[in-house]
Amino acid sequence: MKWNTGFAHRVSAMGNSDVLKMLLLSERPDIISLAGGLPDPAIYLLDEISEVTRQVLEKDGRAAFGYGAIAGLTPFRDWLAQRTTQMGRPTKRAEIMVTTGGVAAIDLVTKVFINPGDTIIVGEPTYTAALHIFRSYEAKLIGVPLDDQGMKPEALEQVLADLKRQGTRAKFLYMVPSFHNPASVTIPEDRRRRISNLAREYSVPIIEDTAYRPIRFEGIAPPMMAELDPENVITVNTMSKILNPGIRLGWVAAPEEIIETLVLAKQGQDQCSSTIGQYLALALGERGLVDKQTKVATGIYRRKRDVTLAALEKYMPERVSWTRPEGGFYTWMTLPKGVDTAVELDRAVAEEHVAYTPGSAFHHQRKAENCLRLSYSYVSEAQLEEGISRLARIIARAIGRNNDQS
Amino acid sequence: MKWNTGFAHRVSAMGNSDVLKMLLLSERPDIISLAGGLPDPAIYLLDEISEVTRQVLEKDGRAAFGYGAIAGLTPFRDWLAQRTTQMGRPTKRAEIMVTTGGVAAIDLVTKVFINPGDTIIVGEPTYTAALHIFRSYEAKLIGVPLDDQGMKPEALEQVLADLKRQGTRAKFLYMVPSFHNPASVTIPEDRRRRISNLAREYSVPIIEDTAYRPIRFEGIAPPMMAELDPENVITVNTMSKILNPGIRLGWVAAPEEIIETLVLAKQGQDQCSSTIGQYLALALGERGLVDKQTKVATGIYRRKRDVTLAALEKYMPERVSWTRPEGGFYTWMTLPKGVDTAVELDRAVAEEHVAYTPGSAFHHQRKAENCLRLSYSYVSEAQLEEGISRLARIIARAIGRNNDQS
Repeated sequence: MKWNTGFAHRVSAMGNSDVLKMLLLSERPDIISLAGGLPDPAIYLLDEISEVTRQVLEKDGRAAFGYGAIAGLTPFRDWLAQRTTQMGRPTKRAEIMVTTGGVAAIDLVTKVFINPGDTIIVGEPTYTAALHIFRSYEAKLIGVPLDDQGMKPEALEQVLADLKRQGTRAKFLYMVPSFHNPASVTIPEDRRRRISNLAREYSVPIIEDTAYRPIRFEGIAPPMMAELDPENVITVNTMSKILNPGIRLGWVAAPEEIIETLVLAKQGQDQCSSTIGQYLALALGERGLVDKQTKVATGIYRRKRDVTLAALEKYMPERVSWTRPEGGFYTWMTLPKGVDTAVELDRAVAEEHVAYTPGSAFHHQRKAENCLRLSYSYVSEAQLEEGISRLARIIARAIGRNNDQS
Repeated sequence: MKWNTGFAHRVSAMGNSDVLKMLLLSERPDIISLAGGLPDPAIYLLDEISEVTRQVLEKDGRAAFGYGAIAGLTPFRDWLAQRTTQMGRPTKRAEIMVTTGGVAAIDLVTKVFINPGDTIIVGEPTYTAALHIFRSYEAKLIGVPLDDQGMKPEALEQVLADLKRQGTRAKFLYMVPSFHNPASVTIPEDRRRRISNLAREYSVPIIEDTAYRPIRFEGIAPPMMAELDPENVITVNTMSKILNPGIRLGWVAAPEEIIETLVLAKQGQDQCSSTIGQYLALALGERGLVDKQTKVATGIYRRKRDVTLAALEKYMPERVSWTRPEGGFYTWMTLPKGVDTAVELDRAVAEEHVAYTPGSAFHHQRKAENCLRLSYSYVSEAQLEEGISRLARIIARAIGRNNDQS
């Protein structure tokens, strides 16, 4: 039987497996991978976590191995509501649903809102997995460019007005306002207010992805989009950066009516998120260990950011620019027009044993060919410097070839 | 903003929240719930699991807290391939994908095969969560009745032939061949071969759900559908019955080409299943503790089955029949025509403090109103007898009222 003749249309919309290839590369020990957005394994408070795990299994083992409520374990939802409130959005339990990580949260939100052909507004660039999900529901994607202060409000307004003139509107606007993945920029407060007002004016809900928000190296955090307009914003959140990805937990905070619909949809996604994981995350949270580990992690990532910026300054050829992140895992690099980072990746791996993620992986139309995302979160400081020096050689040669051609 | 005006069409197809209500009922301590398909918390080998967890965190903690490969942890896939081979389908690693439980497996399979309007053949009755998923992808469902030997081949052949005459065919046939949920029947080998041949003849792949297959009280297991025709069968499997649901792990075994497509789709579902969960399940499996616990659990459920059958014999009024399960968690009860078990459920909870799942929850057209599923897996033996005596009083009164009306 020819199986592939039976696949749904959405399978072809899922596109290529760029991310899969990246993840496989990062597993090869001879490669310095600046590709994946993986946490540094050194951040985990392993002794404390082991001890708390022992306590949880002793006290709640039998309950923790059972099914849990679809929306999440009640005391864990309370803890997440409190945390979301501290982040700036006053939130009660009924406005929280636990998910199996951030991707599962975006999947559910997309599932309950998007019919094939519906419009979603995304940044240029945008988080790869979000693009993958939006495509898998056959959404129509419209891009809004970013500058060094994030999504440009004038460009957004034009898109919103164009859609209105066409007698339609976007189902939602997806954005990562703080420490953007991959662009690493953060939107300042005044621009957040402008975007919030525009979204309200044109009746377009905002999906705010807070993944990197807690990893701030310096400066004052601007308010969440959800703080500015809690009724028009759904936040998708993950424990992957503040605790660990292996536990697969995230959450959605949204108006109660949305949560009820998401819970209905979650029955058909995974029925409930890991019960033992929720017991453990709650116990760690209550003991202050989530905050403690986030603080440790932020310190480690800050040093790596500094190593990265110093090495970029030291090694990169002229006509290459990059963002200076105030938090998060990434810097976004822009090379001269004509250099194709997807093509260069093969050379980078073969000739210099270094990997990164090409810009096109983050673009809804596979553009941004002359950009790349460099992730400094995972590899050691020594590898970071070595990896950037290798990358600089690849880029210098690519620019040389590009000059010859043009 | 009126959020609900923005929901996708599929949300209305997701229907009501019967299952949610059932799960909430089962949490009320004053109710004896025979509704949910929950494992007995007594089955867990808590001491062994705690000790193995400690060992896993000590040995592999930092890796176990990171992201894992989308398809699953390599040695865990190997273990699952070996297990699936022992179940009867010769399977290699590339034919295995780890999922976040059985529901997530069915979700992914449906996502990659079903366009809105595509046909899926299901049993009458069928597992509720599968119906929920199929509806959420806006599939057209065609039912095939079951008798005490499972799905009826003559009825299936008629459906297949009708579709062929209409110039179309079903995208797949979903079935639970062993210890069916909810009907509790098992298809004997000769009938399996007939169904397998029909599926092959009409080019309709089979999705075989093996959830309860390992919980066999007596007799010899017939071959899996996947053993009869590995190239035409996708098995969806869960760790929820053989280990625990709290860990949220399952797996798909299928031809390699299917697995590759499912992996692509899983990127947008939850990126990867719990890494720490996979390390733990593997360590327990390698130490023989998954098999040991399954044996313990099977013994416990066998006694509960016996208590159930004795209590049904003792308490139930005339004109009520039920299946005699050789494994699994359920018996399927049939009441006289005219009794509506969905209506009676409110009375059962209010008047007798007992709950069950009405037949209509398992029917693609919400029929089977005079049937119900009784789950004996969760409550204690004493509660089981008490619950069945309460249920018998409700049913006797319902039959009485029904006789008065007709």
